[in-house]
Amino acid sequence: MATTQGQVITCKAAVAWEPNKPLTIEDVEVAPPQANEVRIQILFTALCHTDAYTWSGKDPEGLFPCILGHEAAGIVESVGEGVTHVKPGDHVIPCYQAECGECKFCKSGKTNLCGKVRAATGVGVMMTDRKPRFSIKGKPIYHFMGTSTFSQYTVVHDVSVAKIHLDAPLEKVCLLGCGVPTGLGAVWNTAKVEPGSIVAIFGLGTVGLAVAEGAKSAGASRVIGIDIDSSKFDTAKNFGVTEFINPKDHEKPIQQVISDLTDGGVDYSFECIGNVSVMRSALECCHKGWGTSVIVGVAASGQEISTRPFQLVTGRVWKGTAFGGFKSRSQVPWLVEKYLKKEIKVDEYITHNLTLAEINEAFDLMHEGKCLRCVLALH
Amino acid sequence: MATTQGQVITCKAAVAWEPNKPLTIEDVEVAPPQANEVRIQILFTALCHTDAYTWSGKDPEGLFPCILGHEAAGIVESVGEGVTHVKPGDHVIPCYQAECGECKFCKSGKTNLCGKVRAATGVGVMMTDRKPRFSIKGKPIYHFMGTSTFSQYTVVHDVSVAKIHLDAPLEKVCLLGCGVPTGLGAVWNTAKVEPGSIVAIFGLGTVGLAVAEGAKSAGASRVIGIDIDSSKFDTAKNFGVTEFINPKDHEKPIQQVISDLTDGGVDYSFECIGNVSVMRSALECCHKGWGTSVIVGVAASGQEISTRPFQLVTGRVWKGTAFGGFKSRSQVPWLVEKYLKKEIKVDEYITHNLTLAEINEAFDLMHEGKCLRCVLALH
Ligand SMILES: NC(=O)c1ccc[n+]([C@@H]2O[C@H](COP(=O)([O-])OP(=O)(O)OC[C@H]3O[C@@H](n4cnc5c(N)ncnc54)[C@H](O)[C@@H]3O)[C@@H](O)[C@H]2O)c1
Ligand SMILES: NC(=O)c1ccc[n+]([C@@H]2O[C@H](COP(=O)([O-])OP(=O)(O)OC[C@H]3O[C@@H](n4cnc5c(N)ncnc54)[C@H](O)[C@@H]3O)[C@@H](O)[C@H]2O)c1
Ligand SMILES: [Zn+2]
Ligand SMILES: [Zn+2]
Ligand SMILES: [Zn+2]
Ligand SMILES: [Zn+2]
Repeated sequence: MATTQGQVITCKAAVAWEPNKPLTIEDVEVAPPQANEVRIQILFTALCHTDAYTWSGKDPEGLFPCILGHEAAGIVESVGEGVTHVKPGDHVIPCYQAECGECKFCKSGKTNLCGKVRAATGVGVMMTDRKPRFSIKGKPIYHFMGTSTFSQYTVVHDVSVAKIHLDAPLEKVCLLGCGVPTGLGAVWNTAKVEPGSIVAIFGLGTVGLAVAEGAKSAGASRVIGIDIDSSKFDTAKNFGVTEFINPKDHEKPIQQVISDLTDGGVDYSFECIGNVSVMRSALECCHKGWGTSVIVGVAASGQEISTRPFQLVTGRVWKGTAFGGFKSRSQVPWLVEKYLKKEIKVDEYITHNLTLAEINEAFDLMHEGKCLRCVLALH
Repeated sequence: MATTQGQVITCKAAVAWEPNKPLTIEDVEVAPPQANEVRIQILFTALCHTDAYTWSGKDPEGLFPCILGHEAAGIVESVGEGVTHVKPGDHVIPCYQAECGECKFCKSGKTNLCGKVRAATGVGVMMTDRKPRFSIKGKPIYHFMGTSTFSQYTVVHDVSVAKIHLDAPLEKVCLLGCGVPTGLGAVWNTAKVEPGSIVAIFGLGTVGLAVAEGAKSAGASRVIGIDIDSSKFDTAKNFGVTEFINPKDHEKPIQQVISDLTDGGVDYSFECIGNVSVMRSALECCHKGWGTSVIVGVAASGQEISTRPFQLVTGRVWKGTAFGGFKSRSQVPWLVEKYLKKEIKVDEYITHNLTLAEINEAFDLMHEGKCLRCVLALH
């Protein structure tokens, strides 16, 4: 590593030049980390819907050309001035939710959303000089979510790097960068499901299954999985789902079906799709008096949720979660250790393994809905 | 009282014969209480918006002819079989939220909504025989909210009667039947405001002022009152409001004005109007990461609230409250004692005193917005 430190590294990355055009593998120059920055050799990355969403052009804040990717693991290659909590050789997970420990958000004790570097990550650049570290023949390429893991090397802010146990297999724990913690945390941190609760989960992809696993470990008595694709049901059993409903098998609105099955509604519901009309059903299938619904799915820009206010006046609670409420730098390492102790699943979410060069196929797999997580090897 | 027990009582009541037609004072026959029922001599009643709403005909569940009224105090005249917790002569507040202690809701420990008599009170009758106890020359007159306090005598379910301290002035504590507890409880029970919090209150009527009082007593550092009627601001100071905003004085959306004034938004907001577009502002003026908005106002039937789900995904919480989350039979007596100990205001909300015969003027006062609470003497 001594050879690359302080130097520009030229490596392979998948670049999104324009919305909706296939990504192309390019030789990208990655500048050395500046103060409070870390350059990471990314070994494995998975794909998640936010990548596809921004790539699709529907994200009004999407900037092109950019390097997508935010669910990954790698090894620190070098660090900039003032970086003390990681050093070259450390195994890390880049985190799109930063954790600085100092800002109003971090100090509130009430949220995992950190405000420290948001002004830069929101516009695809680094804080120090408001410029990206990626370029191709001098042309700047934007960062994405402060992570840009579809590259063999990336530069991130130090507040966005979680140092993990050296024993953790990076080809697996890369998933702990987004989907799995989001589902587990939605249950443990946001909803705080208690033993005996009845839980409904809308959407049985990776996030929904992680919600199921979280609910099972929290002692839920019934975990009702709802998906329009019945082929999801078999796998879901292994993650803790105890009952299934395919809305297509029912004439009645799904909230009514669930309410009838549960003597008035569920204690907790989770929307893990990103569909605003399902978000409404998820709220309205909650039990009067206390039922709490957590929005996990990300809806397309401009779409709105609605309901009659009476739903809330009679005791239902509407919430949402980002990264499951986990504080990234302090809690991702803890999740990795839970995985090493076999207390949480990770391997089971990986249905496909491909290489960076096959990234467009990986997106196709995601869109066909036949894949939970596809992990790409970058080297 | 021995003379009326077991007999039909003929007394004066304000009857709503049809939506929107002035109430008329009639001689009404009030049947004796049946099993688990209590007949109460109502001494004082206030008016609240739900009375006006049902009277207006906009409430699709409104039934006519009926006797409105739900914020009152009186003395038990007689009790039916099986009633043990009150006896003739007890001073009581009839409660539209029942508390049976036995149903799924009461036993949940999570809500004050009781399910015991709802099937009857929702349709203007009593549980035992599914008939009203009011009639005029044999023609049945429906109950309202299980209370019907615009009558010199009413019959209510025993689970809907809170027995209060004999020292409490009934002409004052009648207010503890609805608006004041709703505001206090929205802060103490539903939002659970902590010391140092920044609070926004939309609507500075009785309910909003009670929210202000609750917030002050919970140690809020700033209590921002928002009302389109600036004449409300002077009074509001006495209830704990520290800053005022009249949305009419601003070009920007009110949520933006509030966010700018509070470094990103308030910790808690309360909608005390019943306007769905204000409900949205109340949510959106909350601080990212933790801000919680409580809907207290009751919107007209069919109206819907909406927002972008991103508001919730980034940590805001949307809730509502009914009767401030107070358990009626067990906590209304406690509120009465707090009043007797001068720990909460009540007298200060009473701006007008009239008699039952003047009830139509009392509604006019409410509609003109010049009145907090108007208390009617019934005898
Ligand atoms: N809040 C966060 O921090 C966060 C983090 C990660 C992912 N997400 C979001 O979570 C959502 C789920 O992610 P995923 O990776 O599990 O996605 P996925 O595509 O693998 O799973 C979605 C599932 O929903 C099902 N579905 C689609 N429409 C449906 C409908 N109308 N009714 C019932 N089921 C339906 C699909 O069949 C699929 O099984 C996405 O919107 C993603 O962007 C949010
Ligand atoms: N949830 C419950 O259990 C419960 C109980 C009692 C009352 N309520 C409801 O609470 C609400 C308030 O009751 P109240 O007795 O205080 O009413 P009120 O009419 O005395 O007060 C409402 C206030 O809102 C102000 N206002 C109106 N439109 C506004 C706007 N667009 N922006 C800002 N301010 C505006 C008015 O000027 C007034 O001061 C009503 O909807 C009532 O039905 C709910
Ligand atoms: Zn993701
Ligand atoms: Zn921070
Ligand atoms: Zn009321
Ligand atoms: Zn009950």
